[in-house]
Amino acid sequence: MLYPRPLEALLYELEKLPGVGPKSAQRLAFALLRRDAQQNDDLAGAIRDVKAKIRPCENCGNYTDVEICDICASPKRENGLLCVVAEARDVLAIENSNEFFGRYHVLGGLFNPLEGVGPEQLKISEMIGRLGPEHVEEVILALSPTVEGETTGSLVARALEKHGVKVTQLARGLPFGGDLDYADQVTIAGALRGRRELG
Amino acid sequence: MLYPRPLEALLYELEKLPGVGPKSAQRLAFALLRRDAQQNDDLAGAIRDVKAKIRPCENCGNYTDVEICDICASPKRENGLLCVVAEARDVLAIENSNEFFGRYHVLGGLFNPLEGVGPEQLKISEMIGRLGPEHVEEVILALSPTVEGETTGSLVARALEKHGVKVTQLARGLPFGGDLDYADQVTIAGALRGRRELG
Repeated sequence: MLYPRPLEALLYELEKLPGVGPKSAQRLAFALLRRDAQQNDDLAGAIRDVKAKIRPCENCGNYTDVEICDICASPKRENGLLCVVAEARDVLAIENSNEFFGRYHVLGGLFNPLEGVGPEQLKISEMIGRLGPEHVEEVILALSPTVEGETTGSLVARALEKHGVKVTQLARGLPFGGDLDYADQVTIAGALRGRRELG
Repeated sequence: MLYPRPLEALLYELEKLPGVGPKSAQRLAFALLRRDAQQNDDLAGAIRDVKAKIRPCENCGNYTDVEICDICASPKRENGLLCVVAEARDVLAIENSNEFFGRYHVLGGLFNPLEGVGPEQLKISEMIGRLGPEHVEEVILALSPTVEGETTGSLVARALEKHGVKVTQLARGLPFGGDLDYADQVTIAGALRGRRELG
């Protein structure tokens, strides 16, 4: 059976979203059909607006709807501490930890020559340009513990070599709530190397 | 950290959808941010259109974008066979089985006095009205095997009593691919009662 055309069109668009297969598209579509038209208009408006209104912060690359993002503009953030991340969404992950109060620098990806991301595509020179004006003393590499993340980390570290700043990276170890049984050998090796004295 | 306002608005709207929690709303929002603006416009348009263009078929209550749905209007569908379902989405589930070629009647819910669905809220009299004009000989009850489904089935069966039509219901039994081990006792009891001779 063919769906009525407007429903077919909606299913087609919904299935393009990540993690939405035919079954969940159908569930979403029927939920949209049952809701108030006003709610659907609000959702449609929000989807339309987000691309038009959100842009990268001109200083750090974080998502913002103004020129300079709230974090870069805030006088409450610690000066001298710069956290380097791959994507703007990583900023949120670190913010949610409530453990970091410096500023961020979004590289715009990870080094991946096969996908056309070379050192020139990453905002490394922009980061170097911030060191002086923002009196940066420590750069924290907060990149994914993958081959691409490690390579990108080395690139950034090399670029920072002659600028006299401390370069650190997030600790490797067991994730909270994870079962030791299920941890892979690289994670356990990293947790052993990074072990800390109690108390 | 506060998200930029347009992103916050999008997350708020996405989280209202069924099965979308904060984490998947975030994933969807970032995917929308990375896509072409055109794709987002298409999705927003489809969401807006669906409520405006889809309506219940005036004959059977199935979803349609015209007055009388394709199934009711098709001369290829078997006359005299009426399948009663609770919701319009159930029509799709049965159509997908490729086993039924009659017509449908959507009740618009299941009997549930606690949620304010009494016999008057269900389109039972509309169903009775179709029996004569469509020369209905058999009514198949395709309702969920739940307490509400059973009660609704009895209601419909009673309403049909004096109209001289055959009333049947979908077989109860083991679902395809299900493990006998995992089937509950009511399912097994139903499968035993409904057992069929092989060959």
